Amino acid sequence: MSTFSRFTPLACSLPAIVPFVGPEAIERQRGLPIRARIGANESGFGPSPRVVSALAAASQDIWKYSDPENFGIRTALAAHHGLKPEQFAIGEGIDALLGLIVRLVIEPGLPVVTSLGGYPTFNFHVNGFGGRLVTVPYVNDREDLEGLLAAVKREDAPLAYLANPDNPMGSWHTAEDVIAFARALPDTCLLILDEAYGETAPAGVIPPADALIDLPNVLRMRTFSKAYGLAGARVGYAIGTPGTISAFDKIRNHFGMARSSVVGALAALEDKNYLTEVVAKIADARARIAAIAENNGLKPLPSATNFVAVDCGRDATFARAVVDGLMQHGVFIRMPGVAPLNRCIRISAGLPADLDLLEQALPQVLKGLR
Amino acid sequence: MSTFSRFTPLACSLPAIVPFVGPEAIERQRGLPIRARIGANESGFGPSPRVVSALAAASQDIWKYSDPENFGIRTALAAHHGLKPEQFAIGEGIDALLGLIVRLVIEPGLPVVTSLGGYPTFNFHVNGFGGRLVTVPYVNDREDLEGLLAAVKREDAPLAYLANPDNPMGSWHTAEDVIAFARALPDTCLLILDEAYGETAPAGVIPPADALIDLPNVLRMRTFSKAYGLAGARVGYAIGTPGTISAFDKIRNHFGMARSSVVGALAALEDKNYLTEVVAKIADARARIAAIAENNGLKPLPSATNFVAVDCGRDATFARAVVDGLMQHGVFIRMPGVAPLNRCIRISAGLPADLDLLEQALPQVLKGLR
Repeated sequence: MSTFSRFTPLACSLPAIVPFVGPEAIERQRGLPIRARIGANESGFGPSPRVVSALAAASQDIWKYSDPENFGIRTALAAHHGLKPEQFAIGEGIDALLGLIVRLVIEPGLPVVTSLGGYPTFNFHVNGFGGRLVTVPYVNDREDLEGLLAAVKREDAPLAYLANPDNPMGSWHTAEDVIAFARALPDTCLLILDEAYGETAPAGVIPPADALIDLPNVLRMRTFSKAYGLAGARVGYAIGTPGTISAFDKIRNHFGMARSSVVGALAALEDKNYLTEVVAKIADARARIAAIAENNGLKPLPSATNFVAVDCGRDATFARAVVDGLMQHGVFIRMPGVAPLNRCIRISAGLPADLDLLEQALPQVLKGLR
Repeated sequence: MSTFSRFTPLACSLPAIVPFVGPEAIERQRGLPIRARIGANESGFGPSPRVVSALAAASQDIWKYSDPENFGIRTALAAHHGLKPEQFAIGEGIDALLGLIVRLVIEPGLPVVTSLGGYPTFNFHVNGFGGRLVTVPYVNDREDLEGLLAAVKREDAPLAYLANPDNPMGSWHTAEDVIAFARALPDTCLLILDEAYGETAPAGVIPPADALIDLPNVLRMRTFSKAYGLAGARVGYAIGTPGTISAFDKIRNHFGMARSSVVGALAALEDKNYLTEVVAKIADARARIAAIAENNGLKPLPSATNFVAVDCGRDATFARAVVDGLMQHGVFIRMPGVAPLNRCIRISAGLPADLDLLEQALPQVLKGLR
């Protein structure tokens, strides 16, 4: 293959990959449409009707670049969280912001602490900037706060990642414990506190907005991709001190936000009733996924997210066979990538019709495997 | 200001800026809406009606991530250009792709060749990765192909940037000359050939799709932001050899594209008649801008783009006063940032009503300055 000969040594060392195989790729491979799309922790409940109206009203304006300062959405988020606009940075999903943070902090060889089996896209960015991943195993399917803290200190790591609630396990720590963890970190370590699933967490899991806002070494990440039902819009945001937040302006793609995405996010933020309704539906769906799992002899793990990790009780090969078997029935789910988490499968909350398909397919798949 | 203490030395050295002040910021500052938005080379003619319909039809699907492989749009672009899908990479505007290319090629201190006064966002990315900008002055308001080639050889530069047609001057080189330039470059230099204004260029300016496709050290950049009227969607693409294109997969934000943006771009690509109509309207608008300039004693430069650079015949201070004066009338335009280009103002093609406002305001502004 004919390739430019002078990419950086770091670039040459990286694999050319797509970190998550998308459901569309599976559809193309199988030649069949997916019938239940409950694998990517999207929200099949969809966006608020207000979002749909706002998008329609804004579509003629697509010829205009979006405001590079993201003033409107930052102001709305500030009001929503009871903070100031300069405490918010906006990006093309949390994924984009993760890449920017790694770039701001990591030079080749520097250690980055995360959990073994934690969010792969974060690891992708760490590898992409030549960072050295230092991983801490989960304990009882939860990220290990003590272990993470010890690793940061031992390695003098400038960057650490914690998801609360957690993906892929759905587990969580209390706000109190997370606050204590953040405050115990050396101020030379930037903590990425990924709260992508914050809207679906029960009370007492997400620290209050002002609980960590004095710490320049903490960036809290939120998104419209999960409970708000706007994964396709790509709107994520970081919350931090104005000084730390301003660092994004050094390197971000200022004109990177799609105009309609920002419009959609604003409309979603305004429709609090819809969010409340969806969060209730997600809780119902979690309960039903748990019941389906139990009825099939599998063990659902408690979840504070919009998905349920289900312990299949055997090894990764078995879990993979369940994932592949469900796909044969048009049911798209995913599974964790690393032992011991990969004894589980991960099923996203979906519409009743989606879970009907799961309920029908799962016993057949398991029967075929036993 | 309370800021994280351990950003990289490179990050610490960078200013926190917004490279272009957006028209929204100007509106907030003035407390008045802009009446003629003809400063950012957007297309006031707007998107195809088919785009608007497609966006409406797709809005309910905004809960789904967009296909991370961008299969559909790459396939459509391949058909459009008579190439293969693996010769295309998609990004959140050309701006995002420029950042990725710089990251793939540049380590701190490496030289990057571009024109003095060329696209500032490219320079922003070069600075952001610690590259050393080597600039070549324009000659007769055109980028200097011989000078760029000489600078690449002299500096052994791994990266060079050329816009054809050019922004901010609207000038161009023939396809023949661009092809000769690209082929004369050492294969250790990656050429970014930015053809953002390719759709508005006259015949003989844009090399045929297959003219450079054998060169692994050439990436041609195109966008839906200009003639297609989708600046707010953020869809740009790079064309190159499959090997060089695959490098984007090493580092890109795979889930960064907004779903509706991709849907909009696909619909825009299909409506060739609309594009033809808009390109004709842009040509009419260019002619009218030129006439307005001449009627006011200013000198319009020839343009192959969707804007016209107008030589105000004096220095940057005078041109800045014209820009600011027009803004007092609600007419938003911009100007080049570097001498001698900054004797000019830059006016984007717009609707007849926009140019009516320009026609009314310009003589008043000039009268006030003389």
